Amino acid sequence: MQSEEYLRLKKLVEDHILYFLPEVDPKSDTISEAMAYSLDAGGKKLRPILLLAACDFCGGDEKLALPYACAIEYIHTYSLIHDDLPAMDDDDLRRGIPTNHKVFGEAVAILAGDGLLTSAFEAMNKDMLLYLDNAEKLKRRVRAVYEISKGAGCRGMIAGQTADIEAENKECTKELLDYIHLNKTAALIKAAVRAGAHLGNADKEKLECLDEYAENIGLAFQIMDDVLDFTGVEEQIGKKTGSDYAKEKATYPSRYGLQESYAKIKELTENAKKIMEPYYDDAEFFIQLSDELADRVK
Amino acid sequence: MQSEEYLRLKKLVEDHILYFLPEVDPKSDTISEAMAYSLDAGGKKLRPILLLAACDFCGGDEKLALPYACAIEYIHTYSLIHDDLPAMDDDDLRRGIPTNHKVFGEAVAILAGDGLLTSAFEAMNKDMLLYLDNAEKLKRRVRAVYEISKGAGCRGMIAGQTADIEAENKECTKELLDYIHLNKTAALIKAAVRAGAHLGNADKEKLECLDEYAENIGLAFQIMDDVLDFTGVEEQIGKKTGSDYAKEKATYPSRYGLQESYAKIKELTENAKKIMEPYYDDAEFFIQLSDELADRVK
Repeated sequence: MQSEEYLRLKKLVEDHILYFLPEVDPKSDTISEAMAYSLDAGGKKLRPILLLAACDFCGGDEKLALPYACAIEYIHTYSLIHDDLPAMDDDDLRRGIPTNHKVFGEAVAILAGDGLLTSAFEAMNKDMLLYLDNAEKLKRRVRAVYEISKGAGCRGMIAGQTADIEAENKECTKELLDYIHLNKTAALIKAAVRAGAHLGNADKEKLECLDEYAENIGLAFQIMDDVLDFTGVEEQIGKKTGSDYAKEKATYPSRYGLQESYAKIKELTENAKKIMEPYYDDAEFFIQLSDELADRVK
Repeated sequence: MQSEEYLRLKKLVEDHILYFLPEVDPKSDTISEAMAYSLDAGGKKLRPILLLAACDFCGGDEKLALPYACAIEYIHTYSLIHDDLPAMDDDDLRRGIPTNHKVFGEAVAILAGDGLLTSAFEAMNKDMLLYLDNAEKLKRRVRAVYEISKGAGCRGMIAGQTADIEAENKECTKELLDYIHLNKTAALIKAAVRAGAHLGNADKEKLECLDEYAENIGLAFQIMDDVLDFTGVEEQIGKKTGSDYAKEKATYPSRYGLQESYAKIKELTENAKKIMEPYYDDAEFFIQLSDELADRVK
């Protein structure tokens, strides 16, 4: 993703990503180090950027949305740390560097994941304390946090992760594959734009457009991830390729083949763009992003 | 703990413990089952009971505090599930039944822990949505959730867990041992009464008393846990005894011996009672509870 606006928002997130973590006692240096290791390991920062962009789009102040943007990246990062554990996907490499448990050991990696997830809510709640006497702004924040908790939880990301694990080495129906993608990946991406929209005090119409947009790019994003696991170059995407295949994971390419996967990505991307087109220039960022996500090679 | 009030509150918690979990899609039955398995596995329900009692004590409505009480039990339960994992304490038995990963496998146990932690915040935030137009009540809830996130996080429980893991097989100073106990156990117990106090709209004085009380019983509770690991009967306490010793864990009995550990429990218990005595009959529950916790055999 190379658009100027994407890079600007990415820098904003990267500059603040450690800022909202709780200040811990020096006796807990290990956990801070382990959390910072994975937060600093690069990555697209897609979810926080979408949150900020949605907030902007709805007329909110992106700077005030930063604690929520960083919190959603804490959640995404914890999910990767736990996902990489030996008991889960057992991956040694992530974003081109050793996975968290390879560096800090499994116990600390589990705790670092737990720590990031808890820190996400701690950071958002700490921000809310600043608005105790501003009922209107407090409301928006409560709504935003609820979206994030729901998208990250057992009706969202965790539901998808569980279904994904359970589908390994099994025949997977189309319905189940869609369920996995919708929850494992699209749910948190949807939560990002919905939270940003609430923070920006969106009207219902904008909220619904952003929601639909996010669902489409979220699904396209996951199919592309699976395609890259098939076709990608390990050095470029920074993690082992071909591992879905080895684990007999339920993926689009394994079920429908590459050609149909590309066609599905194109269809979802066109849907996403069509949803945002009525907003013309105001939606430029979102329209460009859908194309860039569909064209990515890592 | 046999006081009538304790048993009444325990029943209230047990009757609602599954109620505040998000309603999940039938495709995610496994994760619901795994979470419910550990929530239903008995246990003292000390933290939610303390939250409700603190809310009562400060003049709040205990029924309205139930989502927060159950949420803190979700957090405590997730910490036990992750703590029992092979990479952590590697325990096969908890509360007299097989640990979560022994029944559901490691991957689902990790996700069930993540699910409970996320559900805790989802449940509290969902409750907050009911008070968007009541600034005063919303405020109290925001404060309560912040206490819980802080107590459960990297300046609280997770800091203690990490220090505990790191202290294994190492010389442990008195200072570090106190740090571990204060964070691993006392932090969430303190968070419980502080959250309850906020929900009950406590004045500063009551909040401080409850905080100090909880710190004292929290520390006594952890020392007693370590003592029971030394002296307890496996069938009675429902988990393997002697495992701290085997892992060369940093504990009070291993550092100071049993006699001094009992003396410390007594001292902390007396402190706790003294703090609450100025409230006479209103504090009866808390005073009785400190004694019962010090006398427990499981």
